[in-house]
Amino acid sequence: MKLFHGWLSSASRRVRLCLAEKALGYESVPVDMAAQEHHSPAFLAMNPNGVVPALVLDDGRFLHESATICEYLDDIAPAPPLRPDDPYARASMRNFIRWTDERLLPNLLVLNWSIALQPVAAQWNDADLAARLARVPTAERREAWRRIARQPYSDQEKAEALRALLALIPRMEAMLGTGPWLLGACYTLADIAAIPFIARLAELAPEALAGEVAPAVADWWQRVQQRPAFAQARIERFDDALRHRRSIRQTHGAATPAA
Amino acid sequence: MKLFHGWLSSASRRVRLCLAEKALGYESVPVDMAAQEHHSPAFLAMNPNGVVPALVLDDGRFLHESATICEYLDDIAPAPPLRPDDPYARASMRNFIRWTDERLLPNLLVLNWSIALQPVAAQWNDADLAARLARVPTAERREAWRRIARQPYSDQEKAEALRALLALIPRMEAMLGTGPWLLGACYTLADIAAIPFIARLAELAPEALAGEVAPAVADWWQRVQQRPAFAQARIERFDDALRHRRSIRQTHGAATPAA
Repeated sequence: MKLFHGWLSSASRRVRLCLAEKALGYESVPVDMAAQEHHSPAFLAMNPNGVVPALVLDDGRFLHESATICEYLDDIAPAPPLRPDDPYARASMRNFIRWTDERLLPNLLVLNWSIALQPVAAQWNDADLAARLARVPTAERREAWRRIARQPYSDQEKAEALRALLALIPRMEAMLGTGPWLLGACYTLADIAAIPFIARLAELAPEALAGEVAPAVADWWQRVQQRPAFAQARIERFDDALRHRRSIRQTHGAATPAA
Repeated sequence: MKLFHGWLSSASRRVRLCLAEKALGYESVPVDMAAQEHHSPAFLAMNPNGVVPALVLDDGRFLHESATICEYLDDIAPAPPLRPDDPYARASMRNFIRWTDERLLPNLLVLNWSIALQPVAAQWNDADLAARLARVPTAERREAWRRIARQPYSDQEKAEALRALLALIPRMEAMLGTGPWLLGACYTLADIAAIPFIARLAELAPEALAGEVAPAVADWWQRVQQRPAFAQARIERFDDALRHRRSIRQTHGAATPAA
């Protein structure tokens, strides 16, 4: 298998975590989002939504959507299982993942793109911007690129985005009642879906993850980071990774290296 | 089980189709969307998104999201199976359903709400509207209610919504290559997901479903309507059902009857 992904992309991080838990080997193909490689015809053939990640199977077929890819990996490589056996718990897992996709991801985008992509996008001239926007296949993402290029998200919008993201913590705190994982005894795709958001909140609002504020989530986050798959999937600190990438880019020119 | 649903709601229609295919008995509880029963505290406890349908299990637990409910029903009642065995086909099914949820449903809403809910919502005074909007739990739906109450969708917006919906037909035509169903030999939740949209397009743009334009979809639509579950799920013509509801309402007062 070949994974087209972004090192800092939440959806890509989920798929890397899932692949690592399953000990599935794959070829890693980092996509340069600042260069909009994911809007190229070759990438759009793999994922018509023009977002990372995309998985290419050994027979050449493609899959997109992190939730779908993770369930597919659990189908083809059932050990260790990453979905609960109980149908109701499985349904709860799917609704939790969907909630993170619909309610959290657009808010994380506001915060992450403002620092990761805005410095590049703001430099495009009008003709260049128009050409680049024309290649973005969805209205939502087209608007997000326009915003960071020409109308940066305001401090108020960023504060609202952070507030929306923080809704994850009480929700997880309630789900972790019996623990140790979000759906009970079994580590599942729900935990994997939450990791990229908690990892980012641990950088943006560490006080919200303190043991006295959210004891169950704080413990969960410690347990998550101790899993071998966490290190293998390279869920690096966003700010550090960004600084590292920039320093390499300044040394070697415009092309963004793999990490 | 108890299903809280709307007779004309696409997501509700999917769950009724799935229950009928499985021959699962359930108590039908129609929700009066014009009276915003789905924004009541009792409904929000079942589905925090404040949209139909919601399924109440015999033990009192709730489930929401039609895609999740349908997979749950296929888990608890595996015969007849409504998901393909092949992992890649299963992933394709999930991505197709997700595409209909993200790309088609918001456009069908523009067309359906303009005739089903706008006549009622336009009559609310400002204080009433503000109180009603305050109970809508998501920003997207709050904006949709505001639009039909105060800023009706324009003819251009409706034409764009119809054009977006029509993208379903070439997509299905390509998927049906080998047929007879969207994912091949087995009738699946992908077919069920498409039915409410094709049923509505058969009313709004019948020429787009003509045999000479979309032969595979036209055949598929004939086969779908011959399934006993189609009649049991009561996928009635939208316009007819609306007229029927209104004539009953005028006879009996404001309360909307079950159908």
